[in-house]
Amino acid sequence: MKFKDKLNSMSKENNSLLCIGLDTNIDEIAPFLLRKKDDPVFEFNKQVIDATKDLVVAYKPNLAFYEAMGPEGLKSLMRTIEYIPTSIPIIGDAKRGDIGNTARAYARAVFDVFGFDAVTVNPYMGLDSVKPFLNYEDKGVFVLCRTSNPSASEFQNIGTKPLYQIVAEHAVKWNVHENCGLVVGATWPDEIKKIRTIMGEDMLMLIPGIGAQSGDLEKAVRFGTNSSGDMAIISSSRSIIYAGKGKDFDRKARDAAISLRDKINQFRYES
Amino acid sequence: MKFKDKLNSMSKENNSLLCIGLDTNIDEIAPFLLRKKDDPVFEFNKQVIDATKDLVVAYKPNLAFYEAMGPEGLKSLMRTIEYIPTSIPIIGDAKRGDIGNTARAYARAVFDVFGFDAVTVNPYMGLDSVKPFLNYEDKGVFVLCRTSNPSASEFQNIGTKPLYQIVAEHAVKWNVHENCGLVVGATWPDEIKKIRTIMGEDMLMLIPGIGAQSGDLEKAVRFGTNSSGDMAIISSSRSIIYAGKGKDFDRKARDAAISLRDKINQFRYES
Repeated sequence: MKFKDKLNSMSKENNSLLCIGLDTNIDEIAPFLLRKKDDPVFEFNKQVIDATKDLVVAYKPNLAFYEAMGPEGLKSLMRTIEYIPTSIPIIGDAKRGDIGNTARAYARAVFDVFGFDAVTVNPYMGLDSVKPFLNYEDKGVFVLCRTSNPSASEFQNIGTKPLYQIVAEHAVKWNVHENCGLVVGATWPDEIKKIRTIMGEDMLMLIPGIGAQSGDLEKAVRFGTNSSGDMAIISSSRSIIYAGKGKDFDRKARDAAISLRDKINQFRYES
Repeated sequence: MKFKDKLNSMSKENNSLLCIGLDTNIDEIAPFLLRKKDDPVFEFNKQVIDATKDLVVAYKPNLAFYEAMGPEGLKSLMRTIEYIPTSIPIIGDAKRGDIGNTARAYARAVFDVFGFDAVTVNPYMGLDSVKPFLNYEDKGVFVLCRTSNPSASEFQNIGTKPLYQIVAEHAVKWNVHENCGLVVGATWPDEIKKIRTIMGEDMLMLIPGIGAQSGDLEKAVRFGTNSSGDMAIISSSRSIIYAGKGKDFDRKARDAAISLRDKINQFRYES
């Protein structure tokens, strides 16, 4: 099954565009888990998943937080991926990019070894660094376009036609297997609008920057979705997974997820 | 000690600008190792290191090949890093780039967990994605500028003043702690010349693309080094580590390394 079909199917089932970023930092998880469990990072993720799996369109672990714990961290990540119900898409937020034979190794890592359904990649090195990922026709490939961070414009806005627009235009051409999408930060609503116009109706937009990064949710949803209110993934990490720090952190995460999912749907269906 | 001092010291000791890329792919290593050893990837690296440690200025493992073997691959990488004599700089070819709090996690991974002396990073997201690495004042940070792959010009040449030149100019400003360098592929000699002019005499240029990628060695050395024939790192992976496939692969790797080191020195001292 193509990634976008898997995603749209879960979007319908859970009536949701909400993606939860499992950016689990061992220094920030509920302290009682550290005392109690062999693999507190997996335990944390497990409880978040149990509490939110009927609310999300996808989960998105960022590999950085697991790599920062060394090989054991990657084992926690693999256990997490195995634990997520197979019908829920999992996006590996890896932002990889390297020359052809190396990109093939990265693609093997994220898709064959870790088993992600989709990945984020960096376009700086051009098509041959992205193609090894795109060659997995049933996997999703989200190309960084206009990122959510404050320095994003430093290079992404260079040129008479800004670089991010050129990247978006290239991604449209790269979408031969209908598996290419774009990452656009919720912090840049005007750019979201422009990029959706370039992408048309049928490409997926992954929109991080809601929550801790204070992106504009209403505009992100209205401008990021297509004319049916679909094909966008609104991702939040810290504001959900760290909503509570006590023993009821999973309940707090659920409450935060319900609230955000419902707000997204409100803007989706009004637009 | 600053990274560039460590590097220059090893460059003098071994009379070398040669960096060997430990891009160890389990499908390509000498087959007898697979039958004989518990950790054939580490054993392969160990033998390459034993055979070349008096010839190199640095080693550069690319993380992709280790990630493609899962958590066990990262253990092989960590054993390799521990095995390399501490006086030889180790560059983690990771090409990472992410928003601030995530970049901090990646910096922790490469410098504190893996223990690399330097890392390669991707500039697409701008300064705040690079700064967490630069904040490690004694570590080296090589920013991708003009990469060696065929698609490099797709985005890196956009704009009246091409993007790669703008990246180089920014990197000069980012060099506050004298720990910022640039990655420029040996496949683009004219760009190497231009970028060395922008960088001045005292910044390091990491030049991959020699060997399997057929970059122009003579021009890479002449244009990439500063006026004293220093401050450039010429990196080759496959043409050295896979020079032989039999039991004498280490001897073949040594022969290839001697030949390349000497050629580099010839161009260095003639220029």
